[in-house]
Amino acid sequence: MRAVILSIGSELVTGLSLDTHSADIARVCSALGIEVVRHETVDDDAPAIAAVFRRAAAAADFVIATGGLGPTLDDCTREALAEAMGVALEMNAEALAHLEGWSKTRGKPLSDSNRRQAMLPRGAGVLPNPIGTAVGIAARVGSAQVYVMPGVPSEFRRMLDAEVLPRLRAASPGRATVVRTIRTQGVPESIVGERLADLMVPRRSPHVGTAVHGGMIDVHIYASGAPDEVAALLEADARVVCERLGDAVFGEGDTRLEETVAALLAGRRKTLAVAESCTGGLIAAKLVNVPGISTYFLEGVVAYSNESKVRTLGVSEALIRAHGAVSEPVARAMAEGVRVRSGADLAVAVTGIAGPGGGTSEKPVGTVWFAVADAARTEAARELVLGDRGHIRERAANYALNLLRLWLLRK
Amino acid sequence: MRAVILSIGSELVTGLSLDTHSADIARVCSALGIEVVRHETVDDDAPAIAAVFRRAAAAADFVIATGGLGPTLDDCTREALAEAMGVALEMNAEALAHLEGWSKTRGKPLSDSNRRQAMLPRGAGVLPNPIGTAVGIAARVGSAQVYVMPGVPSEFRRMLDAEVLPRLRAASPGRATVVRTIRTQGVPESIVGERLADLMVPRRSPHVGTAVHGGMIDVHIYASGAPDEVAALLEADARVVCERLGDAVFGEGDTRLEETVAALLAGRRKTLAVAESCTGGLIAAKLVNVPGISTYFLEGVVAYSNESKVRTLGVSEALIRAHGAVSEPVARAMAEGVRVRSGADLAVAVTGIAGPGGGTSEKPVGTVWFAVADAARTEAARELVLGDRGHIRERAANYALNLLRLWLLRK
Repeated sequence: MRAVILSIGSELVTGLSLDTHSADIARVCSALGIEVVRHETVDDDAPAIAAVFRRAAAAADFVIATGGLGPTLDDCTREALAEAMGVALEMNAEALAHLEGWSKTRGKPLSDSNRRQAMLPRGAGVLPNPIGTAVGIAARVGSAQVYVMPGVPSEFRRMLDAEVLPRLRAASPGRATVVRTIRTQGVPESIVGERLADLMVPRRSPHVGTAVHGGMIDVHIYASGAPDEVAALLEADARVVCERLGDAVFGEGDTRLEETVAALLAGRRKTLAVAESCTGGLIAAKLVNVPGISTYFLEGVVAYSNESKVRTLGVSEALIRAHGAVSEPVARAMAEGVRVRSGADLAVAVTGIAGPGGGTSEKPVGTVWFAVADAARTEAARELVLGDRGHIRERAANYALNLLRLWLLRK
Repeated sequence: MRAVILSIGSELVTGLSLDTHSADIARVCSALGIEVVRHETVDDDAPAIAAVFRRAAAAADFVIATGGLGPTLDDCTREALAEAMGVALEMNAEALAHLEGWSKTRGKPLSDSNRRQAMLPRGAGVLPNPIGTAVGIAARVGSAQVYVMPGVPSEFRRMLDAEVLPRLRAASPGRATVVRTIRTQGVPESIVGERLADLMVPRRSPHVGTAVHGGMIDVHIYASGAPDEVAALLEADARVVCERLGDAVFGEGDTRLEETVAALLAGRRKTLAVAESCTGGLIAAKLVNVPGISTYFLEGVVAYSNESKVRTLGVSEALIRAHGAVSEPVARAMAEGVRVRSGADLAVAVTGIAGPGGGTSEKPVGTVWFAVADAARTEAARELVLGDRGHIRERAANYALNLLRLWLLRK
């Protein structure tokens, strides 16, 4: 089984936006053992898109496309698909019902431009979109099955998982390329590479490689073959990787560091409070993105100003004057202050210099102090994080979450 | 002048790595007024790549490719290009001299696999690569000029800027494609489309299109031509777009909503505090990412638990019992509470149901209450935000920032 992936949009073909959907679709196809022949990115131009649909349909069993399903006149994927199918556009009853339901829920009348989104090629099926106005399309061009999804990232992601993936799986053969990802934090990439050197040799199967995201190192292990054999091969490698990287491993697959922290808090029945200066709410925002965290995460304070550190966290003004806001004593006082204020078992605090200004030779941009406190004791750590402002904040937030994780592991 | 962009590699076509080179090349082409017809991503497979080279050469003046120039056997772009040109591979003296120089500098003998990298199609030219072993290739297929660059990001980037860009500029006709982006929040895409319908007709110049990010609608305006004329055309359209979309427009280009809010706070010398429940620190995190915000952003409280709303924000328990934590009175009390606590001029509060659980028929998942308060008055607004948890939080944060922006505009 073979697939061609299309992405449609002026902003993509001109490079104004980066296409990440094609890679997402390609990974789904690969995982199902469907060979991806090529990706193509084309402009919002109906005749050109129609030609690409026909060429793709001649080369593959599946043509999977994204983009150009919006309500505005530059969106012409529906027209192009109808042209490639050699049929007319017509009002699709199911799509219209979806749009009418959508506008009813919002208490707003259905606009003419939204009504355009229900005009589908005759004979095409609807892929439901519960979170947007653009329904997806299932159709045939020649002997190929075509799926078209919206370009809006959240709508695309959901439709890929809920609608397209199951259809591809039902049609896919018994061979798969499987990837396992071991996620780590706290060990540099060069050390990970040294510890795994014998696994990372070229053309070994499974293939073992590393990738860096926000200061965290992911170890990818992949192999192709019959699903059972592949699973056993990957399991053996995954075990070796976890053993060699020890407590730097915080999870597998898509697991986020904050999810691991949330699971540890739940397992140990500990409540948490967070005091943030340079990370400005990022730690809280990450934690709150874990469903069910409200039982354990009691409160966050973004104490960006010194006044807020004093008034809300109870840090003494004298301490800030003596050591500066970015210092070990202030980090400790912030953690202790937010713990007492919130009544939580555990607290973490971060104070640092995210730049671009504010650095000195003694405390350069990227200097960040962390503290973790419970009722019995407070521990502090310093880290120099390199990068731009956003980068420093992201890494500092991950560093803080990792301190919490290691603290909870030791309990 | 037209270009087709190719990217070559198994890791790209399977989605394991994300192709960012094509977007980089597309931006260079667009800036020089070279129209990008399409991008294609293909596997390391010589006959398939040769076919794609020929098809691309028939459709464009330039074919710009990356990848498949490495020393290992899976790299076959050189063979494929020779096949597309209808010539043999031969040892290229300039490429060999480069490789010999490279190995000499490193004090290592030249390996056979590296020597393969000097085998180029007969008649092809060399694009120097001072930072890697893979030289680039300049060649002709039919009437098209072909450039091939290595896929290694640093080598690609350097060769694009130092070798390919000057050649494209020399061939480009004093024309440029210029893009202006008008950023909006608060008006749905269908309404934007209706207000701009006469500008968004296919094949009009400038081309006007929309794209959605985190609930915000960007209007892109592009045109090609002599730089001065293009600038005047875009200015005229930008003025019309801004006029028709009114105060939904918050900025141009890369401007983020929080930057506009920060500029308004600075302009009006107003300090701000934020109380967040479902957005969990995301509003604070966005604000803190604006350099210099510390003068205006005094404090954020992530009051995720009811206890925190009561203790830190002074919301009365009776109010929460009577109306629920997600309600207009609680949103108002949170805004007023954090304003008083922090001593800020202005405060914004958000409380909502981000899901997946917690929704009821009366208050479904996605129900979010917002409030903005100053010393004189408090205003509240409700919004039903659809999507998954992350999506609801992102959109709710943007909605809150937009309420602040509109409030500050009216001052």
